[in-house]
Amino acid sequence: MFAILDRALNIERGGQKVFHLELGDPALPAQEKIINETIEGLRGGAWHYGSSAGNLDFRNSLANFNNFFFDSKIVGENIVVAPANFFITAFLSLVCDKGDRVLLITPCFPTYIASASMLGLEIVEYATGPENGYIPKEPIFDLIKKVKPKAIIVNSANNPTGALYSEGFLEDLVIAAKNAGSWVLSDETYGLISYDNKYYSLINSDYDKLVVLSSLSKIFSIPGLRVGYCISRSSIFIGWLVKYLSTTISCIPPFIQVGCTEYLSDLKGVSNDIQAVNILYAKRCNFIFDEIPSLSHLVLRPKSAFYLFLPLPNHIDGKIFSVDLINSSHVAVTPGVSFGNDFKSYVRATFCGADEDVIEGIKRVSSAILNLKKL
Amino acid sequence: MFAILDRALNIERGGQKVFHLELGDPALPAQEKIINETIEGLRGGAWHYGSSAGNLDFRNSLANFNNFFFDSKIVGENIVVAPANFFITAFLSLVCDKGDRVLLITPCFPTYIASASMLGLEIVEYATGPENGYIPKEPIFDLIKKVKPKAIIVNSANNPTGALYSEGFLEDLVIAAKNAGSWVLSDETYGLISYDNKYYSLINSDYDKLVVLSSLSKIFSIPGLRVGYCISRSSIFIGWLVKYLSTTISCIPPFIQVGCTEYLSDLKGVSNDIQAVNILYAKRCNFIFDEIPSLSHLVLRPKSAFYLFLPLPNHIDGKIFSVDLINSSHVAVTPGVSFGNDFKSYVRATFCGADEDVIEGIKRVSSAILNLKKL
Repeated sequence: MFAILDRALNIERGGQKVFHLELGDPALPAQEKIINETIEGLRGGAWHYGSSAGNLDFRNSLANFNNFFFDSKIVGENIVVAPANFFITAFLSLVCDKGDRVLLITPCFPTYIASASMLGLEIVEYATGPENGYIPKEPIFDLIKKVKPKAIIVNSANNPTGALYSEGFLEDLVIAAKNAGSWVLSDETYGLISYDNKYYSLINSDYDKLVVLSSLSKIFSIPGLRVGYCISRSSIFIGWLVKYLSTTISCIPPFIQVGCTEYLSDLKGVSNDIQAVNILYAKRCNFIFDEIPSLSHLVLRPKSAFYLFLPLPNHIDGKIFSVDLINSSHVAVTPGVSFGNDFKSYVRATFCGADEDVIEGIKRVSSAILNLKKL
Repeated sequence: MFAILDRALNIERGGQKVFHLELGDPALPAQEKIINETIEGLRGGAWHYGSSAGNLDFRNSLANFNNFFFDSKIVGENIVVAPANFFITAFLSLVCDKGDRVLLITPCFPTYIASASMLGLEIVEYATGPENGYIPKEPIFDLIKKVKPKAIIVNSANNPTGALYSEGFLEDLVIAAKNAGSWVLSDETYGLISYDNKYYSLINSDYDKLVVLSSLSKIFSIPGLRVGYCISRSSIFIGWLVKYLSTTISCIPPFIQVGCTEYLSDLKGVSNDIQAVNILYAKRCNFIFDEIPSLSHLVLRPKSAFYLFLPLPNHIDGKIFSVDLINSSHVAVTPGVSFGNDFKSYVRATFCGADEDVIEGIKRVSSAILNLKKL
């Protein structure tokens, strides 16, 4: 990945355009009210330390926000705030010991793999594939029964495939986890970006070893504010998590919490904003597939999020392809191996970036893949 | 600690004043230019992801800032940014394995102990005492030779004692560490708040297993912005650290980095600001000792930072004393055991808080201790 980013930087330093499809960093402007209220928070003096769990006002507003969207009944005390990426390591550190097994449904967000490796966990990858729409098949329940993982990470809406898992599948997975005594992290970061609204949240599950992870970064286009949150019904787990955060990052900036709290106070407005963002990404997805007719032969159309996970022909290595692509076509993508061992011959391209990057960039990736197919 | 904070909250909910001396959270206003430039950063759209190491502009400005003050020759690539508290866990995670020995000079910042415990390290506490001005004595070098710790954390200017270690001691400690192959974390968070400017930084040491930790939180009164940094001459260590940060917190908010970069661009102005803060805390320290004549019999006058580390008479337990104190006198302090096992009969009181808290609060602590002495 560094080789690609370095090359991209060199090309740009040389005055040439690079088409950036490598990062899930929305080019949409941040929700203006969050920015304005964060500025007010700074002006108002919220530059002091805050609670490691997050300010209770903010946790309450996140509870209301979730209850509004998912008909749940959580309270602020069920919620802890920190960067979403950090919660992956926090969760795995707290529930696993070195050598414990963690089950990942792949392809998956690279931090799951990086964090589990860093902590010395044994990673069991359950690979899904395009033939089944990247939906895990039944044997995963047998697998949970057999390997008894200490922890399972499940991610619907899915990065990088855009797959959405059904209510039945997710509830069954929780039953299998319960039977095996496994902890479950349900990463729902992209849940609110599901085009046909079929996203199912595990927030209402009463399994005490289930933790829901979400983030304000993607849906409100504020990744640099670093605001994610965990939801758990277990006061014991919340206690562990708060202690972990107080030993590590202490807290996230309180003025950012003030900004987000103010924004979330108008849930009707928030709901409209979310719908607008949703429609925008769905339209953009349709537009790309309309503009590039060959694309539908190359990749499964995502049902959520803003990524295309593209298989390469003839088992071509995704790393080599990515380096060739940045050199020959000036397009930056992410090699598939970051998402799991079974995906060495894939690349991920995002469509959340700037208009001028996305259309031309994806056109160039598509042609490069089509040319390979002709070989 | 929670018992005390809960009690404080209850008293305040009942409409009564609590004198807060428990947190190192400066009541001084944040440096205005940092706040204004951070707002400009937000307005300018710096709400995207940033580099895990920190933006190179910011790292360069931190290098210039340090070179200006310590006559050092570091470059931006020697620096990584994240909350200072987080670097303690990051450092220990990267250089130690479970069961490894870490040497702490106590009393010490509670996160050293909490983090080492969390990581399953064997903590060797080397206790200093007021009889020697909390300066470690010669046997520490024999101890390093004998126990060969995997890591040593040294903290001058010291929290909670305000002690400053000499150049000779610190350089000798590095030699002993080098001979034992130990990593050293030199926490210099309070370095720029040393009243007589006798603070000695290890930034110019060429030992490749030495890491300097510092923070903008205390000296610029911006703890809630969560900006700390590590300095290392080892590109290998910097590489480990960046990978660790990319797997955990990803990055700190880029607009905050923009704000700090702009502020640090005028080093003459920064220098004046630092001097003003320094003089202010020194004056405040003098004022407290002048106002409360008995204080000099109760506690060693600090040479830096903004804490008083008070021994209690008759081996009275600091936790019990602290709970009694909040109940009877409405003053919140921190029990000494948080700073090391040898300090159960101590409490820490800060004098960085609001004027109305500090003078009256410390008066009340002093009387409470004097009353105990009379028993």
